[in-house]
Amino acid sequence: MRAAGGGRVSGRGHLLVGQSGGPTAVINASLVGVIDEARRHEGIGTLYGARFGVLGLRRDDYLVDLGRLSGQELAQLRHTPSAALGSSRTMLADSDVDRIFQILRAREIRFFFFIGGNGSAQTALRVHRHAVAQGYDLRVVAIPKTIDNDLVETDHCPGHPSVARWLAVSVREAGLDTEAIGTADPVKVIETMGRDTGWVTASTALARASDGDAPHLIYLPERPFSTARFLSDVERVYQERGHVVIAACEGLTDENGKFLTASTRAVEADPLGRPQLGGVGATLSDLVMTHLKIKARFDKPGTVQRVSATLTSTIDADEAYEVGRAAVREAIAGRSGLMITLIRESGPAYRSTTGTVPLEQIVGHVRRFPDAFIAPSGHDVTAAYLDYIRPLVGALPDYARLFPSPKIPK
Amino acid sequence: MRAAGGGRVSGRGHLLVGQSGGPTAVINASLVGVIDEARRHEGIGTLYGARFGVLGLRRDDYLVDLGRLSGQELAQLRHTPSAALGSSRTMLADSDVDRIFQILRAREIRFFFFIGGNGSAQTALRVHRHAVAQGYDLRVVAIPKTIDNDLVETDHCPGHPSVARWLAVSVREAGLDTEAIGTADPVKVIETMGRDTGWVTASTALARASDGDAPHLIYLPERPFSTARFLSDVERVYQERGHVVIAACEGLTDENGKFLTASTRAVEADPLGRPQLGGVGATLSDLVMTHLKIKARFDKPGTVQRVSATLTSTIDADEAYEVGRAAVREAIAGRSGLMITLIRESGPAYRSTTGTVPLEQIVGHVRRFPDAFIAPSGHDVTAAYLDYIRPLVGALPDYARLFPSPKIPK
Repeated sequence: MRAAGGGRVSGRGHLLVGQSGGPTAVINASLVGVIDEARRHEGIGTLYGARFGVLGLRRDDYLVDLGRLSGQELAQLRHTPSAALGSSRTMLADSDVDRIFQILRAREIRFFFFIGGNGSAQTALRVHRHAVAQGYDLRVVAIPKTIDNDLVETDHCPGHPSVARWLAVSVREAGLDTEAIGTADPVKVIETMGRDTGWVTASTALARASDGDAPHLIYLPERPFSTARFLSDVERVYQERGHVVIAACEGLTDENGKFLTASTRAVEADPLGRPQLGGVGATLSDLVMTHLKIKARFDKPGTVQRVSATLTSTIDADEAYEVGRAAVREAIAGRSGLMITLIRESGPAYRSTTGTVPLEQIVGHVRRFPDAFIAPSGHDVTAAYLDYIRPLVGALPDYARLFPSPKIPK
Repeated sequence: MRAAGGGRVSGRGHLLVGQSGGPTAVINASLVGVIDEARRHEGIGTLYGARFGVLGLRRDDYLVDLGRLSGQELAQLRHTPSAALGSSRTMLADSDVDRIFQILRAREIRFFFFIGGNGSAQTALRVHRHAVAQGYDLRVVAIPKTIDNDLVETDHCPGHPSVARWLAVSVREAGLDTEAIGTADPVKVIETMGRDTGWVTASTALARASDGDAPHLIYLPERPFSTARFLSDVERVYQERGHVVIAACEGLTDENGKFLTASTRAVEADPLGRPQLGGVGATLSDLVMTHLKIKARFDKPGTVQRVSATLTSTIDADEAYEVGRAAVREAIAGRSGLMITLIRESGPAYRSTTGTVPLEQIVGHVRRFPDAFIAPSGHDVTAAYLDYIRPLVGALPDYARLFPSPKIPK
């Protein structure tokens, strides 16, 4: 796809790449993909890294030379979690744009790559439009990254399969834990990330190896949370099995659309004005203890879930690298104003290729967890979802079970 | 060491083994150690597993035959986290003891192994004493297991090195996360387990690869928590670095000895009457936001930290297996009323052997995190502690750092 502004630039110049938004297990693989591919093209000069996302774009002294990195350093960086350049959630102010273009012009930067989610795509689109309006030759390509999996027009987002793998394995293990000690701790709530979409939470369904395994209830923000229904769900599973493991998204809302746990303190809102979430686990375990008089606890893995190198999905790491490379190839081919996408090929074995989409089709759109992936009960996923997610996550550890998932004595 | 009651039994009979207390990554390795060693001794007949700890001891229908497990099943079980027999925190009632001995006599059980922490040692001691008092030939050996590392008379407790490894790696990764996104989320509290001793929390210090790395502050329950000092610590690190990662034990108490987060609800107390802990992370991050007006979040990995098979310490898994085997050897040699211990050998490379200690010396004693391991500041550990813990945890992943741990812009 050839976007507005494509094909007009000279094809020679320096390169700038930044990382933005929440860190992931594989965002550095995308950075290394950009660097490796850029080094193959003579038209690309210096490889500048912008530190701390948008903060680095507007400060000349935050640009660093990535050309000094050795092959060995790049190989290590490719498997290092979190965002090695530093990141931010800062959004562009109008005054920033002029400042950024002063720097781009002064440094003769002609290739601009930004790795991130929706906020990063928005930054890239503004930079692209300004370049077009000013007649400044610049090729702008966004590289997708978000554990939330909520970008439209792509099969999935790099970073998501790894958080899904972390949750699949960790919830399987935490489920065995409750199965064993449910005599003392019968109810456990596991709070996941994912903000206001259910993708991250849904992946906990992969933890199940057999019928009756944890998680027994999965609450997604695409369905309004009803306290009465929740208590009745928990009570029913508890009567059936003697123990209950619950996966709950941090962004659950009640039937009035109000976050179960959003704080009203101004200090907790991020630069997009989104409230700080987190606390659903405490809220739900309190509900169980107060109303059902059953002991409940909660796990909130928090940021640990998104930056685990130990449980990174191999497919995710490889695809994150490839979207970085693809972005450079698109820019070299003269295209701008795009985001790279992942396209799942049909066939028995999982394969993907990269594609592109104009940034206008990304910015401001959120891909919610679809109805077809939500079970009629509202607290589980469908087989269609498992078919979607399973190939991205890879094989899971197979643990010994001396007994079928037990009915625990009370 | 020859304990009271040693050497009086016939040396032939059936065996019973149970698991008790919180699950760990390696408690099944101890179970397999018991089974493997028992199969080598002709004097041992049927291998009974008691399901759900003490609950299984007092119900004949909760005994299962472990002899049916194949070599392949045992190999898989040895590396499966959580407690495969099921566990409990139930303590023996007086009426239970008679019931247990009815079952032991009816089944002709002469070897009794209980894998767990202090509560399990107490159960084993009562069973041992009752056997001696009744003149019933029974060899009782407790097998140590607790992530809390709070049993006395042993260098460390099986299960602890693996939770330490999980925290070392996960806090290293979560530290890189805050280092990257500290521009938006500058303060992170990581709440660990450990109840009222600091062993588990202290192990987060292993996350540091270089000076200035996370965690920057480590709060242990062996030092009373002062809100004023905490806020001043956080403020200082924040001014120095622009971001702060805090490790805090779930069992922190204030200067009056009151748990920071203990609930008073009866439903939350365990059978030992200990209050349910957990919530320190929320408490401390709230303090930071309220008093310092700095955005703060918390991670509470909860049960995930104690049952990770992916980050199990190899030494821990091997030692857990060996303490299981040693227990059988001691019983075969005619000893009873003991717990197996781990003894660290002197020398440049880490090596350990097993020893024994009378149960009387274990029960009711708690090994607190020693003063020599706590830095004078009260919010860090000493080099002596790192020398103690490092060999138990093994090599940690070495991640790429493009820059020294940064001063993050605000």
